[in-house]
Amino acid sequence: MSKIIGGPGTVCGLILRIGQFLSASASMSVMLTATESYNRTAFHYLSASMCLQATWSFWLACAYLSALKYKKDLQTPILVSLFLGGDLVTAVLSLAAACSSAGVVVLYAKDVECCDVHDQFSCLRYGVAVALSFVTWVQIAVSFHVSFWIYASV
Amino acid sequence: MSKIIGGPGTVCGLILRIGQFLSASASMSVMLTATESYNRTAFHYLSASMCLQATWSFWLACAYLSALKYKKDLQTPILVSLFLGGDLVTAVLSLAAACSSAGVVVLYAKDVECCDVHDQFSCLRYGVAVALSFVTWVQIAVSFHVSFWIYASV
Repeated sequence: MSKIIGGPGTVCGLILRIGQFLSASASMSVMLTATESYNRTAFHYLSASMCLQATWSFWLACAYLSALKYKKDLQTPILVSLFLGGDLVTAVLSLAAACSSAGVVVLYAKDVECCDVHDQFSCLRYGVAVALSFVTWVQIAVSFHVSFWIYASV
Repeated sequence: MSKIIGGPGTVCGLILRIGQFLSASASMSVMLTATESYNRTAFHYLSASMCLQATWSFWLACAYLSALKYKKDLQTPILVSLFLGGDLVTAVLSLAAACSSAGVVVLYAKDVECCDVHDQFSCLRYGVAVALSFVTWVQIAVSFHVSFWIYASV
């Protein structure tokens, strides 16, 4: 298998995983503190999805760090297909969660203009959580496509 | 380039494109007739996204049909990368539109139970439009991954 920048076990791959973990954790934290007073299914789904994403990226970052330290090769067909499957699931879930929450935030902020009426609905806070989830998705999409490229290049 | 089932210019590829066109058109029609009395940004976005998807799939279906009839090869690197780019854009837009509309429908149907209060909000009709958009997305995702596989296998 050819070594590609951003692939499993590389420094760029590790930076991507750390970035995913940080943005997913930040999105989850902002959403969890915001939903204390305002419960919506889409927001709960975003929190759950970002929690899953943060966990997945954290363990992969640990695996990449270990591979870099002990000079192990993570770009074997079995491992790459495992990363690929996990990235596909988390990427689709992250985008779905980000978009469903974005739909609700736009509804409240633009369509019914709820931000001005109810003080307890913090449009800015929800907006930040959704933006962070989109940042997470972009990073996981990059990881997925790099893994897919490596897998298809065999 | 290796010929893969469901790839550009194959019978399976043509069936996929026709399926995408039909489900996207159906989703757009249901949503457009439903939004006459109830305007929401997410629903407009879904209609626009499904319109784009239906147009893209229609022209590709015509190209595939022509290739099958005149025995032309559509699996050249330039053409496959063109299909790949278009499929990537439409797949992401379709999933984003489906999820944002699903978030709003779930909000109305489950969180605020608006279906029982306002007769003008047809939860069933919006639900059908969202379900059809997810069906469209699954088909475009299959087309995209087949094209990506062919492109990466060069």
